[in-house]
Amino acid sequence: MELPISLAELREAHERIKPFIHRTPILTSESINAIAGCEVYFKCENLQKIGAFKARGGLNAVLSLSEAQRAKGVVTHSSGNHAQAMAMAAKTCGIPAYIVMPNTAPDVKKKAVAGYGAEITFCEPTQAAREAAANQIMEATGATYVSPYNDNKVIEGQGTTAIEFMEDQPDLEVLMTPVGGGGLLAGTALAAHYLKPKIRVFAGEPKGAMDTFLSMQKGEIVPNKTTNTIADGLLVTVGDKNFAIIQKLVKEILVVNDQEIVDAMRLIWERMKIVVEPSGAVPFASLLKYKAQFTGQKVGIIISGGNVDLGKLPF
Amino acid sequence: MELPISLAELREAHERIKPFIHRTPILTSESINAIAGCEVYFKCENLQKIGAFKARGGLNAVLSLSEAQRAKGVVTHSSGNHAQAMAMAAKTCGIPAYIVMPNTAPDVKKKAVAGYGAEITFCEPTQAAREAAANQIMEATGATYVSPYNDNKVIEGQGTTAIEFMEDQPDLEVLMTPVGGGGLLAGTALAAHYLKPKIRVFAGEPKGAMDTFLSMQKGEIVPNKTTNTIADGLLVTVGDKNFAIIQKLVKEILVVNDQEIVDAMRLIWERMKIVVEPSGAVPFASLLKYKAQFTGQKVGIIISGGNVDLGKLPF
Repeated sequence: MELPISLAELREAHERIKPFIHRTPILTSESINAIAGCEVYFKCENLQKIGAFKARGGLNAVLSLSEAQRAKGVVTHSSGNHAQAMAMAAKTCGIPAYIVMPNTAPDVKKKAVAGYGAEITFCEPTQAAREAAANQIMEATGATYVSPYNDNKVIEGQGTTAIEFMEDQPDLEVLMTPVGGGGLLAGTALAAHYLKPKIRVFAGEPKGAMDTFLSMQKGEIVPNKTTNTIADGLLVTVGDKNFAIIQKLVKEILVVNDQEIVDAMRLIWERMKIVVEPSGAVPFASLLKYKAQFTGQKVGIIISGGNVDLGKLPF
Repeated sequence: MELPISLAELREAHERIKPFIHRTPILTSESINAIAGCEVYFKCENLQKIGAFKARGGLNAVLSLSEAQRAKGVVTHSSGNHAQAMAMAAKTCGIPAYIVMPNTAPDVKKKAVAGYGAEITFCEPTQAAREAAANQIMEATGATYVSPYNDNKVIEGQGTTAIEFMEDQPDLEVLMTPVGGGGLLAGTALAAHYLKPKIRVFAGEPKGAMDTFLSMQKGEIVPNKTTNTIADGLLVTVGDKNFAIIQKLVKEILVVNDQEIVDAMRLIWERMKIVVEPSGAVPFASLLKYKAQFTGQKVGIIISGGNVDLGKLPF
């Protein structure tokens, strides 16, 4: 398989979005290193705009549209961070955003999306209802649909996290991300492949939605039939564009259960003093569970996001 | 009054502790700016080692000891961040630390201090019992007592936060810290005075322990008779060494109540995705309360710490 995204495209994406994103800090902790038995570097995309790396992909997708496309706006369906990312990206570019959200989405997320001036359409909380509503908007407005992950422009944008990470910490030996739809993982794997091919790329995945783990075993996508995990950002099945890249470039998917995720999340809050959502703690949970594989190594972990309801903490 | 600490001493302190501390990141948020009506820059000492700026003062005090003093170790009494700072600093230098802690201190703090290998002596939770225990240890061991704030070496160390802040964000017009004993505030005011004399320095203080506010009004130290605030790091009365500097160089003390502190704390957690203790949210609470004074300005806020019991959050 030829890779669908070139190094030049990744670099162009980074230049394109740089003026609009935070170059997020890399944090370390000696007590975390002692617990993990290796040198851990956290790239904090929870401190990114909208509280998640999704700002990168959303911005890259919107900024890559033609003038004609921009005029008609963008549409997506999402209950989570991608909704905020698209709303923020559209606002940044001064174009319309139409966001389909399930009527069950938490108030805090509805408000955040509305705060960016996006037009929200509520629908029943099913995949069919979401797609139908988005299709209706596309037909009525001519807006461009942007997938949360199964889109090369989105993958390029997410890959810029790893570019910064490797620039600022050039001696990393391992990179770890969570995997849901696979945008962040595919982008990270591409960036590492081009810039530091010796880095081994892993992902953490929750046991309650372990489609990517199973897909890697089988060699083809095995969709989640049911999902049951606290990591609410990782419920979707890996996209086909993402899986093609992951299959080629990712070393291994490491599966963790919800208790391991909550324990890792709490440890990050307590020791690193940062707010991390359950999905964002999944790779660190994986590192702790499989730490024998990483003893003494320099492990870079991308903390994907920090959007969590403070009134409903799991500890 | 001649200033008791020179610019050269501040710079030497910074060089002395630099290898052992984090250069903490400065974070910003457009939504926070919109709420505050000005440009807010947060210098995140909650992301410092031990989760608080106190690491700086503790390290500077310990690293400034003579060889003979080092051999006998250091002693202090504290239930909070200073205890951890001294334990960490002593461990860094490989010398003994004797920490007197009230037997009512939370387990998590006892464990953190013990984790650095310090020898803990428990006592009744009164000032008299704490001082008596510390004096006994000094007599028995010859260890050097290091005050949490009323000490020039500690003040120098705390002042290094503002040095980094002004280096990394040279256009600040205002600097704000919390004030308890006054180490961070005095150090910040000195650094600003020497490096950017046009910067106006303010402090936030909780209404339930507003001794520095009253002391500034009266022109002499007015001790707290009682203390009643959620900002548990700011209960002590300002030290005389600190007050002499504060009186000369600090513009104004801005008083906030506990509800304002909790609201500001929650806003920081939600928008900045960082864990801040109540004391650390006090200057931001002050900014929000008195924002009319700061409209459109570049305001630097030092977030002092993030050591909070996740099981006992006020929201």
